[in-house]
Amino acid sequence: KKITVIAGDGIGLEVTGITQNILEIIGERFGHSFEFTPALIGHAAIEATGEPCPQETIDTCRASDAVLLGAVGMPMYDNNPNLKVRPEQGLLKIRKELGLFSNIRPIKLFDELLYTSSIKPEILQGSDIIFFRELTGGIYFGTPRERNEDGTEAIDTLRYSKMEVERIARQAFESAMTRRKKLCSVDKANVLESSRLWRETVQELSSEYPEVEVTHMFIDNAAMQLIRDPKQFDVIVTGNMFGDILTDEASQIAGSMGMLPSASVGAEIGLYEPIHGSAPDIAGKGIANPIASVLSGALLLDISFGLKEESDAIISAVDQFLKDGYRTLDIATDTTPEDKRMNTAQTG
Amino acid sequence: KKITVIAGDGIGLEVTGITQNILEIIGERFGHSFEFTPALIGHAAIEATGEPCPQETIDTCRASDAVLLGAVGMPMYDNNPNLKVRPEQGLLKIRKELGLFSNIRPIKLFDELLYTSSIKPEILQGSDIIFFRELTGGIYFGTPRERNEDGTEAIDTLRYSKMEVERIARQAFESAMTRRKKLCSVDKANVLESSRLWRETVQELSSEYPEVEVTHMFIDNAAMQLIRDPKQFDVIVTGNMFGDILTDEASQIAGSMGMLPSASVGAEIGLYEPIHGSAPDIAGKGIANPIASVLSGALLLDISFGLKEESDAIISAVDQFLKDGYRTLDIATDTTPEDKRMNTAQTG
Ligand SMILES: CC(C)[C@H](C(=O)O)[C@@H](O)C(=O)O
Ligand SMILES: CC(C)[C@H](C(=O)O)[C@@H](O)C(=O)O
Repeated sequence: KKITVIAGDGIGLEVTGITQNILEIIGERFGHSFEFTPALIGHAAIEATGEPCPQETIDTCRASDAVLLGAVGMPMYDNNPNLKVRPEQGLLKIRKELGLFSNIRPIKLFDELLYTSSIKPEILQGSDIIFFRELTGGIYFGTPRERNEDGTEAIDTLRYSKMEVERIARQAFESAMTRRKKLCSVDKANVLESSRLWRETVQELSSEYPEVEVTHMFIDNAAMQLIRDPKQFDVIVTGNMFGDILTDEASQIAGSMGMLPSASVGAEIGLYEPIHGSAPDIAGKGIANPIASVLSGALLLDISFGLKEESDAIISAVDQFLKDGYRTLDIATDTTPEDKRMNTAQTG
Repeated sequence: KKITVIAGDGIGLEVTGITQNILEIIGERFGHSFEFTPALIGHAAIEATGEPCPQETIDTCRASDAVLLGAVGMPMYDNNPNLKVRPEQGLLKIRKELGLFSNIRPIKLFDELLYTSSIKPEILQGSDIIFFRELTGGIYFGTPRERNEDGTEAIDTLRYSKMEVERIARQAFESAMTRRKKLCSVDKANVLESSRLWRETVQELSSEYPEVEVTHMFIDNAAMQLIRDPKQFDVIVTGNMFGDILTDEASQIAGSMGMLPSASVGAEIGLYEPIHGSAPDIAGKGIANPIASVLSGALLLDISFGLKEESDAIISAVDQFLKDGYRTLDIATDTTPEDKRMNTAQTG
């Protein structure tokens, strides 16, 4: 099995390295041979080739069975609106080119981290949410997206087609059928035309899934309810931008951004990446939490390769690691002993 | 002084009634005479006139010194994309017509409610944030916003001009100067062209306020940081949609949506409304929390009429009311005694 490894920027490098190690160990233990091919994206790719996602990267992905991605982004671009080439364009391009319209983000709280979050344990306990974020449409891709001639005005376009809504909603319905059979669709249908199309499409599809209890929630309310009472949710389906916002927020349910993996699927090849960014402020210090990437590796084995047992072995190992008391900085608390505060550089 | 009272829909009626009573009491006690004129908006206006915000409402507002608004929205419209006339259009129209480009949302946690939130008290304690949400631009108003001919596709347009960004950012900078001198501007500049214009404009303006420490945060990260560590924020400035989402989320810092007032300003006449919606599920039962509306009344006295002492009297009364242990359902806890669980219908 061929895996393309695109480490990207910042902590992408270190966390992806750790995950590759773990996949190698799993391969040995379970008798699979994984072949890893590196590829470039983001700032790293711009430095090397001038492009945030060179054609070679796309080709390498297409020639492989799955893609493991690190993180993309560097602050030097963020505050300079004049730069026309930016790392994130690479991420958007690879998602689009590989047809990854469905970004699956499970929000799983490990028992050991129940007290780590800023949210009260009694609110968190028992919460188990899976997000389906539409990933190749909406305001991330709609055109026109441009400045006017004298630079005094800028526009972006939020566009959705019924087809785009239907295919992601279908995945969410199917997932709900294997879970608690509750689907919450998040939109802003009281203001946005595209949200009214979204809602209408989800409503139409719901007749095919009579067993699934469907609710619709406005994005503002959802951002609040997610914190107020996360246990009310089972499966959540939403657009690209709203999904981006809600899943980052939901990371607090899992204790830290450093805990959340994601799977992007749609066509043949799946792409697996942490939901966190490149965190350049802590990059290279060996203090980044690799768990989000490691769990992305577990999702890769499960979803792309159908290796459920192998995937579960990784999840159990993470669980045991946390039970043994090891903590990176982001999930350490006052009571974490000095010798359990992990330097991932030394242990990766 | 003339106050237009637009109760609107759902719990808007009951909470606005209570606030009007309180303003009358304040008037008597401090020797002011407030004249209240009712006006229609939302579903209530559609029922009576066919329009969500009739011209008469705008005229009444223009002839008054300030506007007190309740809430707008009814579920019967939300799930029916074919209805062309909707309550929320009325809210957007009044904001636009009155030039209310700046929506100020202070997130204040009353000491008494420190343990009410789903967030841990030690995370909340000492947090004090004020939001400046741009209110008459962005994706709420940009055109085109439409379906294509066969209804299979829909678009909305997110548009910002430098002028629109500058005037809201200036208000936020001015506010920061009277506070802890920290301003966080929230955008999605790694993806959106309009956000790059936003960021650039805030950066330019910052040279006029060298004492203010300016940071820029992506909306996804902000949605997470707000819950992880609200104390890091002082003043936050952001666009219409992002502000909508973040302030609803931030209501959990104050314990409940039912606690947060807002002031919308820009031209001569200010409009004051709770940040919560019309909550039709609890409307008419007398169990709605009136505090968000009552505090909106306090903001009205302070900002539109310059009556600081009178405004403070209302805030103290709310504080005392909470200290006395009275609670509406949304802020009640297991330890709230039966006789302190408020029925606002009986006490309003
Ligand atoms: C880096 C950025 C473009 C990206 C996004 O907004 O999709 C990230 O936040 C994510 O969630 O994967
Ligand atoms: C009712 C709705 C249109 C409105 C908005 O999104 O602005 C509300 O959520 C608010 O925050 O005032």
